[in-house]
This record gives sequence, C-alpha cells and structure tokens, in this order.
Amino acid sequence: MKTQLECFPCFLSQALNTAKRVTTKKEKIHNIMKQVCLFLPTMPLDVTPSEFGREVYRIVSAVTGIEDPFQEIKKLHTQQALKLYPRLKELIQSSEDPLLTAIRISIAGNVIDFGTTAKFDMEKDLAVILKMDFAVDHYLAFCKALKKADKILFIGDNAGETVFDCLLIEELGKPVTYAVRERPIINDAIFEDAVEAGIDKVAEILSSGCDAPGCILSLCSAEFLDLYHSSDLIISKGQGNYEGLSDEIRPIFFLLKAKCPVVASDINVPLGSILLKKANI
Amino acid sequence: MKTQLECFPCFLSQALNTAKRVTTKKEKIHNIMKQVCLFLPTMPLDVTPSEFGREVYRIVSAVTGIEDPFQEIKKLHTQQALKLYPRLKELIQSSEDPLLTAIRISIAGNVIDFGTTAKFDMEKDLAVILKMDFAVDHYLAFCKALKKADKILFIGDNAGETVFDCLLIEELGKPVTYAVRERPIINDAIFEDAVEAGIDKVAEILSSGCDAPGCILSLCSAEFLDLYHSSDLIISKGQGNYEGLSDEIRPIFFLLKAKCPVVASDINVPLGSILLKKANI
Repeated sequence: MKTQLECFPCFLSQALNTAKRVTTKKEKIHNIMKQVCLFLPTMPLDVTPSEFGREVYRIVSAVTGIEDPFQEIKKLHTQQALKLYPRLKELIQSSEDPLLTAIRISIAGNVIDFGTTAKFDMEKDLAVILKMDFAVDHYLAFCKALKKADKILFIGDNAGETVFDCLLIEELGKPVTYAVRERPIINDAIFEDAVEAGIDKVAEILSSGCDAPGCILSLCSAEFLDLYHSSDLIISKGQGNYEGLSDEIRPIFFLLKAKCPVVASDINVPLGSILLKKANI
Repeated sequence: MKTQLECFPCFLSQALNTAKRVTTKKEKIHNIMKQVCLFLPTMPLDVTPSEFGREVYRIVSAVTGIEDPFQEIKKLHTQQALKLYPRLKELIQSSEDPLLTAIRISIAGNVIDFGTTAKFDMEKDLAVILKMDFAVDHYLAFCKALKKADKILFIGDNAGETVFDCLLIEELGKPVTYAVRERPIINDAIFEDAVEAGIDKVAEILSSGCDAPGCILSLCSAEFLDLYHSSDLIISKGQGNYEGLSDEIRPIFFLLKAKCPVVASDINVPLGSILLKKANI
C-alpha cells in the first residue's frame, strides 16, 4: 500500500503528539516538527506509510534522546490486557465457535494503537468489536488454510494487543512463530513486550529485523524472510503490517481494524470496520 | 495570537483540501504539499496563523495557477445567505432585543469558513447559534460603546457571512465602514463579495490592504490604519481577524465562533463556543 498525501498532516500530528508525550520543551517540539516537515518532501509516494513513519518517529527519538517514548504505556497496556485474559479465555471456551471468537478478540486488541489519531478504550472497544460484523469475512478460507497448515507465522503489531493474540494462538492448535519489531517504534511490540504478554508460552518469538511500524520486507532479516517464504499460513495483525504486505502474493490473512481513512479506502471498507481478509492469492 | 505547533498539521490539511478543490493532478497536489512542508520551518512561531495561512494559500495558487479557488463557492454562499435575508430581517424586527438577535445572526454567519477543518451547514448552524449561550458575553459593554460611537469600523471575514453582517449593520444605526481583504484568500470577502451581499447599501466598503486571511496590521494600507486608529468602535468578525488583533489595545469587540482548538484555547473557551468579546482595553 502506498502513502497518500492525506498521510502528511497525520505524520505531523503523530510527531507532535509523541513529542508532547516525552517533553514539554516547546523549542524541542518545534525542532521535531521542522525536521519532519523537511523530511516529508524527500520521500517518494510509492513507499508505504510505515516507511515514512519509521523516519518520523526516528526524528522524535533523535531530538528528544528518548529511544522508546511508549515504553511505560506499553507495559501498562500489557498489564491491563493480562487482567482481561481470564475473562476472555472463558468467553472463548464457552462460545459456539471458539476460533472465531478468538479472532474477534485478537482484532479487538488491535485498537491499542498510537500510530493513528484514533482514540481507544480497551474494554469498551472490545465489547463493540465482539458484536460487530466483519466488513471483509474470509473466515471459511482461513479455517481451510489453518487445517492444512503445518507452520504458522503470526506477525504481531502492538504491545498489549499481544495478550489478545495469545488467546488466538491457543486456539490455532498449530506451531506458531510470533514476529515482533526489531527495535522500539511507536507502541509496537518488541521481544520484551511479547514475553511480558506470555507469547513465549504459546509460540516461538522472532524479531522480524524490521524497525518500521509495519512489516517492510526489504527491512526484514534473512531469518525472518526464510520463515516468511516457507510458512503455509501467515497471520498479519494491524494496519502497519497490512501496509507492507497488502500487495504480496502469499497465504496471508490480514486481521485488523481499519482505523485510518487511508487504509480504509485502500481496502475499500468504511472507516472503523473490522476485517479478516485473505491476501490476493 | 501566535501560531501553535498544532497549526502545522492543519496547514497541510488546508493546503490539501484546497488543492483537491481545484485540481485532480496528483503530481501538482504533491508539489503543493512539498512546498508547504518546506515553507513551514522557515517561519517563526511568534507570527499569527493568518500569516502562515497567507503563504500556504499563495503556494496553492502559484502551483495551480488559480488565483481564487473559492470564487464560485463564495458566490454560492452569498446567494444562499441572500435567500435567508428576508426571514432573518423579520426575526430581528420581531425579537425582544433586535440588536442582540442581529449580533447572534452575524456570528452565525461566521460558520461559513473554509480556513478551518470544521464542516458547516448554514441553516442548521444558524438555528443552533440563535439559541446558544455566549461563552464570553460583553454585550452590555458593546451597547455602551455603540451609544457613544460616531464612527464604526466593521472588519469583515468570509463571503456569505457578509449578508448576515448587513443585518447587523442595519441595527447599529451609525455610520459604518466595512473592511474587506485586498485580494482573494480562502473564502474571505473581497470588495466584489461585499457588494454582492449588499454591504454597499448600508456601509462604505474599504479594502484593508491586507491579503492574509485575517487582519494583520503590518500588512494593512495607510488608509485603513488611519481609520483603524480613529474609529471609536471596531467590530472584528471571525478567527482570522481575532488572530491579528487579539493583543491590540483598541475599542475592539470580537464576534466569532471558536471553530478551531488553537483559537478556542487562546480565548480559553470550549471549542464551538460563540462569543462577543471586548479587547483588553
């Protein structure tokens, strides 16, 4: 998925919101905004928003000297999600179709995102998403692919969401490798965040090698790419991974909430939709 | 009022929305966005948002070759407002306090604005604003100033709003000079727009000499400044004029709807408030 000009104001808003999270010094924030302004014209529009985002957040870190502005909030969200775990586990086990319920819960976890300007309320959004219709529903194809799969690659997105992903992995009943980002970027899960969520108990955790807020294959490690090309089912969580993989011809299923107008328009669904979408294979 | 960093994403959104209004050529729109990005870091933050806006819209016009992207929509809004005129005139005449009703109607006209990202519905907003409480209400001071005034300067804002201003001028019962922008900028009223609204029947029309989307005194003509300094009551409509005059020590009354968070925060009122506010004299 390519970057749209609508993303430009959003990049500035993201930079501003993140800068204000870690510093009150107006001069520093102004410096960040100026650097982001000067950066935006240097990039071609045929790259993904995640590649722009990578540099935008790098500027915030470089100017403030804070590598991981979301470190504390990531921990908080993981703890909040872990508290919900027992109740959600029970909900899955008592539901008519535990796998489908686990998919919904995993998508609901995708609301925990600071990379868009959308606001969220974990518990409230969870309740809504559990009842929401899918705008794209390739569940039957997913079940078929799962049945045949020996090796599943699960590309994670945000910290906290990881706990909801745990619940889905437990329902898959197959060996799973869970990919995380290489370094802190927005509130995306890195290795430590996945361990804190308990992913290490249900899957193997692997860094994708990529430090963008999405799965950009050209930035991924050889080890990750090997797995990516040899897995027979790939679960891709969230907008950032969709941006990087939307044009791929691989057995990928995208699980996400369309939180920004540009992604919603690319998928051709209304803003706020949830979807379980098979890649163009 | 100074520009805030929150204005940066908004400038990009305004450039994008205006560019899309006059061209479908992505390359041109991208060029505009790049030029606006490169421009924003060159300005100090102690100037008003109107001074930034002046250059942002100048870039849109320079790249597209269209001097007045809002020409048609300005005409349309003036015509729509003129259709409402008889009903509003009746409303004023039959109301308990015609002057106060005329002030409310003039503020309601201030929703006709493309310089913010707020959307508007002329008739619906009018009905709401007629019943809304003022967040700042210096009506008594206004009545007192009006009684003593011999010479009123009315600084207009947007085309279409001009019709609503006519109704207020008719209630003032004093000689009024109505100031308009020197050249087209967003949907702000220029000389022709004021004439189309019938302002020439109720007041003398004068260009302020300024081509920013607000009254920036350093950009105004000597003729306007003479009048500005000699008038004993100044009515300033809208956000743009407030931005330029908010720190002035003159007998100014600001009539506006706080449509953007930065202006609302500067005045210390909730977003969406209407106000009749005396300048710090």
